[in-house]
Amino acid sequence: MRDAFHDELNALNDRLMQMTNLVRSAISRATTALLDADLQLAESVISQDAEVNRLYAEIETSIYELMATQQPVAVDLRTAITALRMGADLERMGDLAEHVAKIARMRHPVSAIPVEVRDTIVEMGQIAERLVTKTGSCIATRDVDLAKELEDDDDAMDRLHRRLFRVLLSKDWPHGIEPAVDITLIGRYYERYADHAVRVARDVVYLVTGSREFDDSAS
Amino acid sequence: MRDAFHDELNALNDRLMQMTNLVRSAISRATTALLDADLQLAESVISQDAEVNRLYAEIETSIYELMATQQPVAVDLRTAITALRMGADLERMGDLAEHVAKIARMRHPVSAIPVEVRDTIVEMGQIAERLVTKTGSCIATRDVDLAKELEDDDDAMDRLHRRLFRVLLSKDWPHGIEPAVDITLIGRYYERYADHAVRVARDVVYLVTGSREFDDSAS
Repeated sequence: MRDAFHDELNALNDRLMQMTNLVRSAISRATTALLDADLQLAESVISQDAEVNRLYAEIETSIYELMATQQPVAVDLRTAITALRMGADLERMGDLAEHVAKIARMRHPVSAIPVEVRDTIVEMGQIAERLVTKTGSCIATRDVDLAKELEDDDDAMDRLHRRLFRVLLSKDWPHGIEPAVDITLIGRYYERYADHAVRVARDVVYLVTGSREFDDSAS
Repeated sequence: MRDAFHDELNALNDRLMQMTNLVRSAISRATTALLDADLQLAESVISQDAEVNRLYAEIETSIYELMATQQPVAVDLRTAITALRMGADLERMGDLAEHVAKIARMRHPVSAIPVEVRDTIVEMGQIAERLVTKTGSCIATRDVDLAKELEDDDDAMDRLHRRLFRVLLSKDWPHGIEPAVDITLIGRYYERYADHAVRVARDVVYLVTGSREFDDSAS
């Protein structure tokens, strides 16, 4: 029984890694779709979110089955419940990438990103990708130090988010309300994407150390 | 053992109800703080979110203990895991009310809400309160029909959210970028608050029926 259980846990980990890869690709393509007003790319992000949702549903089902049939305790129980949380965060990251892609689609053939904030959005996209890549490595390697690095990247995301508002609110913003509304939402989506990536990494730390002390609830 | 377990589950339900009451009060006060530019009220929402977080941490701890010591199966297991999810959604609702209050605080002594969108924000606040009140009743009574009613309220919230954008994007919006950015974020916070309330109600349905068929993943 216990060996079958650990095989199942490994399979779960593989599915979480798959989800991580999918939501990394999604935010990467969404950023490009946004910057280049690439409709086809935006559509691909939107349609492929179903795959993320399907993986999450599989993870949920198999965890419920695992817990019902194997009644795990201690560290095994912690692993199973934490995988549920991680799956939920990754699923949400997929939604947020999809939201970004939907703005790209809505504004096509124009880019939703005026030149004044282009560099900031490029950087937010890069940090989002870096974060989720590290999150994937954390899941694969259970490297607690790497998980802690994500906090710095998240701080960098918050700085970029504040920079975005400074540009929007500067006296010489020439683009009016609609692009400002788009960019406000886009900024929020990247920031939340980063928060969820950090939460997944924190869950890895929790799994390894059994402690949540390095948590301070990303919001 | 089993009776102690069910006593614990009832205690969990009480804590979830307490969280529901707190986040209902939080969004109600946040809305008033926003409309009246009431700094003291905004501060009370911000400081009292710690209480919501504390309750959620208690729920988490007691569920982990329960699962480790009692090894629940079938419906009991489902109840315990679902309570974790519900707690997480309620905790997030507290954060969102706090975000609304922070905008009220940031713009004080001016109200962040110009007259053109005042009625829409009033209604969004009312629907948020109605949703969370029904969510509380769902948790207390396990009334599946009531849970389904929440979907209609959530649709009403989405309509108000679209109305908000129409006003922001109308040619005669006289307030410039900063209020538009504030209102974009505020609208998003109410919409997400409603989504999480619906998720909690869906979890009640899942608990009662064992089926997730009425889910279509609020995002």
